[in-house]
Amino acid sequence: MIVKTQHAKFDRALKLQSGAVLEPPITLAYETYGTLNADRSNAILILHALSGDAHVAGRHGPDDKKPGWWDEAVGPGRAFDTDRYFFICSNIIGGCQGSTGPSSLNPKTGNPYGLTFPVLTIADMVEAQRLLLDHLGIETLLSLVGGSMGGMQVLQWTISYPKSVRSAIVLAATAQVSPQSIAFNEVARQAIYADPKWKRGDYSDGEAPNDGLSVARMIGHITYLSDTSMREKFGRRLQERQKYGFDFATEFAVESYLKHQGDHFTRRFDANSFLYITKAIDYFDLSLGRASLAEAFRDVTARFLVVSYSSDWLYPPEQSEELVRALLQNGIDVTYVEIRSDYGHDGFLLEVDRLSGLSRDFLARVAAAKPL
Amino acid sequence: MIVKTQHAKFDRALKLQSGAVLEPPITLAYETYGTLNADRSNAILILHALSGDAHVAGRHGPDDKKPGWWDEAVGPGRAFDTDRYFFICSNIIGGCQGSTGPSSLNPKTGNPYGLTFPVLTIADMVEAQRLLLDHLGIETLLSLVGGSMGGMQVLQWTISYPKSVRSAIVLAATAQVSPQSIAFNEVARQAIYADPKWKRGDYSDGEAPNDGLSVARMIGHITYLSDTSMREKFGRRLQERQKYGFDFATEFAVESYLKHQGDHFTRRFDANSFLYITKAIDYFDLSLGRASLAEAFRDVTARFLVVSYSSDWLYPPEQSEELVRALLQNGIDVTYVEIRSDYGHDGFLLEVDRLSGLSRDFLARVAAAKPL
Repeated sequence: MIVKTQHAKFDRALKLQSGAVLEPPITLAYETYGTLNADRSNAILILHALSGDAHVAGRHGPDDKKPGWWDEAVGPGRAFDTDRYFFICSNIIGGCQGSTGPSSLNPKTGNPYGLTFPVLTIADMVEAQRLLLDHLGIETLLSLVGGSMGGMQVLQWTISYPKSVRSAIVLAATAQVSPQSIAFNEVARQAIYADPKWKRGDYSDGEAPNDGLSVARMIGHITYLSDTSMREKFGRRLQERQKYGFDFATEFAVESYLKHQGDHFTRRFDANSFLYITKAIDYFDLSLGRASLAEAFRDVTARFLVVSYSSDWLYPPEQSEELVRALLQNGIDVTYVEIRSDYGHDGFLLEVDRLSGLSRDFLARVAAAKPL
Repeated sequence: MIVKTQHAKFDRALKLQSGAVLEPPITLAYETYGTLNADRSNAILILHALSGDAHVAGRHGPDDKKPGWWDEAVGPGRAFDTDRYFFICSNIIGGCQGSTGPSSLNPKTGNPYGLTFPVLTIADMVEAQRLLLDHLGIETLLSLVGGSMGGMQVLQWTISYPKSVRSAIVLAATAQVSPQSIAFNEVARQAIYADPKWKRGDYSDGEAPNDGLSVARMIGHITYLSDTSMREKFGRRLQERQKYGFDFATEFAVESYLKHQGDHFTRRFDANSFLYITKAIDYFDLSLGRASLAEAFRDVTARFLVVSYSSDWLYPPEQSEELVRALLQNGIDVTYVEIRSDYGHDGFLLEVDRLSGLSRDFLARVAAAKPL
């Protein structure tokens, strides 16, 4: 499956949740998979997590070495079947993979935004995606699917546009980010702030704060794995050594893995984007300004498939259960499954086989039902 | 209770587990509480955790504002009763609170050691403490007590000097540090390495790498609390703000707490010591070079009180259970209690009331038993 990244450019300002305005032009990088049917009723929006991008599946060309980030799940005959549905995925605003973000040029100054980029929320990401769907002529979504921060966007979509969403698949997410998650994000941000190359975000004409960003990413990766998966994957095994070196070289396999992940991340990600995206996550709290979480879903008519992963301690199953209770209190049709998995938070990306049966049946049921 | 920190200076080299030698002079800062009885049979060694020091209880003078780090637990009539027992606590070697460590002067060069200080292990810390006990004329310990890394030292003592230890109290510890714990320590170290002020440890004539050390400490603090205690203590409450500021200031209460802990730590702790101590923790694995963990305790005759804390996810109860199984396989007299607590790893410092009854009875039973 060969896909091309496309870019939609919008010449109108985006009013943000903060009250600030993101000035045009606003660009969204996106990809589509499959074919939109005649009555435009088979569109499914895929929402990516913190470090994801528009490139979900397939390859950009015959020589492309690596497929998209969820290629196992999206394609012909796969869990998200491109023979039956039309999938769209866009890089979030605030990102750094083709959509407008802090590394984009500020139209007022002609220089990269840096920290002059406005702070965004998950709801703002959804507003930008709404522009894209209007651009594509899609009024109603058959479904939305996303894990982690992608799941937060799914939830926000059902609330922001209740009449446009027929169903929602929420994986390894939460309706209210916990103080422990905020703590990890804040420490990761502090690692970037502490890097003198960060220069309060104004590093575009010098070296990027890669040391800080690498540490930030390493912190994140610990929270994506589970204690069990770390034992199975690494244990106390040494990397390239037979015995303790009694020095400060990277020597345990788990250290080597994290260091590699951290370094690799700096080659594809912008430190300021990391700050903006984690801040948007921390702000995510659907109960904010409402009497209860349940109240947030008062106008929602979508059917839900909510999936948690037993060893996920970043957004653990109890947080999905709170979400499910809030949905049930509104009489919403919800299927909830806790998948037994040792993969931790990464389970939402890796446990594709377990998810396939669930999502396939769920989507078939939604597609067969009377439209909204 | 007024106590003075004392310093014992040793003029002999210490052979280390790595094969390296720590050259004299070697200084150990220590404090004692209570009175050693005539037959020297009531001595109990207290072992401190990563950031602790010799000052366990009481005050250094009438104007001293803050008592020692475990004042609630150690004193006349307290869980560790200074009216009955003689307590000793020394700052570990490798530390920075009066004992020889990387910030001490290298006798060969006259300059601070920095990274020329040899990498230490928990067993090396125990050897240094053995020198101190010899200096104090104490052959046999009625007991040892320590939490977290202090508990690791307790375990190592029972193995290194089985004939000198009548009992051991191990709190919130592990016999084998998990890859997840190594991961957190390594990321904390990376935050220090990434600070340009660290200069590969050679910062004694300039500014200290406090930004890196602060991030390292913040990471640690997340692992000392539990998800539940964070919810109860902070929730999603904002600090000094009524609503989201949409900027990158410290705004959630949990962020403010961590930032404060990080900054405060830099005023009392040395970054190189942090590196050496966390490395010693990572190396701790009593099964290393043995057929099983049980084999490590083959010659041990001490009675054990092992305590874990239900919400401790740094060294969780299952790791204490593994330890208890290994002890039982050797027919060792062991009492194991998992204290129900929401405090996470910090429970070992905070749940003093719950511990008191257990430790008091345990010590009375050991004191009444026939000596080794």
